[in-house]
Amino acid sequence: MTPGAVSDPRRNIKLTLEYDGTGFAGWQRQKDQPSVQAYLEEALGRLTEEKVTVIAAGRTDAGVHARGQVAHFITGSRLEPEEIQRGGNALLPSRIAIVSAVEAALDFHARYHALSKTYTYDLYTHPVRSVRFRNCSWRIPVKLDLTAMGMALKCLHGEHDFASFRSVGSSPKTTVRRIIKAEVQAQRENGLRITLEGTGFLRHMVRAIVGTLVEVGRSKITPEEFEAVLLARDRSVAGVTAPAHGLCLREVKY
Amino acid sequence: MTPGAVSDPRRNIKLTLEYDGTGFAGWQRQKDQPSVQAYLEEALGRLTEEKVTVIAAGRTDAGVHARGQVAHFITGSRLEPEEIQRGGNALLPSRIAIVSAVEAALDFHARYHALSKTYTYDLYTHPVRSVRFRNCSWRIPVKLDLTAMGMALKCLHGEHDFASFRSVGSSPKTTVRRIIKAEVQAQRENGLRITLEGTGFLRHMVRAIVGTLVEVGRSKITPEEFEAVLLARDRSVAGVTAPAHGLCLREVKY
Repeated sequence: MTPGAVSDPRRNIKLTLEYDGTGFAGWQRQKDQPSVQAYLEEALGRLTEEKVTVIAAGRTDAGVHARGQVAHFITGSRLEPEEIQRGGNALLPSRIAIVSAVEAALDFHARYHALSKTYTYDLYTHPVRSVRFRNCSWRIPVKLDLTAMGMALKCLHGEHDFASFRSVGSSPKTTVRRIIKAEVQAQRENGLRITLEGTGFLRHMVRAIVGTLVEVGRSKITPEEFEAVLLARDRSVAGVTAPAHGLCLREVKY
Repeated sequence: MTPGAVSDPRRNIKLTLEYDGTGFAGWQRQKDQPSVQAYLEEALGRLTEEKVTVIAAGRTDAGVHARGQVAHFITGSRLEPEEIQRGGNALLPSRIAIVSAVEAALDFHARYHALSKTYTYDLYTHPVRSVRFRNCSWRIPVKLDLTAMGMALKCLHGEHDFASFRSVGSSPKTTVRRIIKAEVQAQRENGLRITLEGTGFLRHMVRAIVGTLVEVGRSKITPEEFEAVLLARDRSVAGVTAPAHGLCLREVKY
């Protein structure tokens, strides 16, 4: 605050959120469908006795999970951030949790100020379906070639036109995005985790990348052919869009 | 089969099962309530076109999970065990899975022939509730003293009268049971796992042990006082019964 300025009674609260996307129509408020945003705005509205609008870093799709979604809201409430966290968690359904709440600068914007987002996509490679991974992993009934998948991911690093890896219906101003990290690692119990960090993502971009990457893992295409898909800048040459429930927004950096 | 004996057309199928106990009234079939047994018997009945009765090693309570429950059923069906597994998994709801199906000796009995059962009980020690562990861990809002808990568990090894650690309503012939393994280990992400292997367990025994063990972890009682609870053979001196959703039947040995 500038010395001598009139104190602004409003505060900007930055939330870090965890949710299980199962059964939600996604982050964004939608008519007659359960959304994370609607539950949060309802809980925070009751708590602060104000009409609250919550803005998230990433508008996750239906079924997509979050461990480190970040959101902000402006409030005139005098509640401490810790009280907002505790009170919010008491009012929210068990599949949404406020992991932390802190006061941010009044001009902090969860979406516009994000420097990078990290998504993970979990695969479960086993012929028999798993109960405990059913809502958080895409099951592939065969073993995948981890080395080939890792080689394929290398071509994603840096700035590229990702037109091959996006939602068919979307039409963003530019399809150029920068990828900072792209890796795949074996997990316990027949799991594979693909991690992608980028300054921004097109709609369905991670899921389209994973759908095509699984073809590399199944030796249906080579890592070189995966790179050719990227370079083609044509959605029709890429693989299927992987299902939403394997995807998780892990971290947003500012 | 004895040479020359008439071939018995019946076969005994041994199943290994995984299930998410959330929302089930437990293993055992109950009127108007969803049970694992009812879903299994329905699916296997459709598959074999017979009336099927499935007998489990342990009749898990409402909310209790299983990773390695074992059950058997007698069938006249000529379906191969692999076909029973695949077909059963296609018919069962996603929160129950047949991990394996093999043919066993006709006199194999999942409950009576079990040599030991292993249960795990998961704790989540964090002041903020967790979304992803909400249905599989008991949350304790403070850090627990792992060393003291490990010391307390030592007294359980061997044969003891476990009358202090049982369901109030139950009245078994004997309350003596043999514990083969009793340990606690730190898990990732603020987790603790208590593992108990025994030749048999009283109703609510693991959960009563865990409820009292958490008092040791919170330094409300000492490991010596924990042992005194065991030796008292009196349910009223033990701690609370830990909630069902932290408990999981991991393995049954034969």
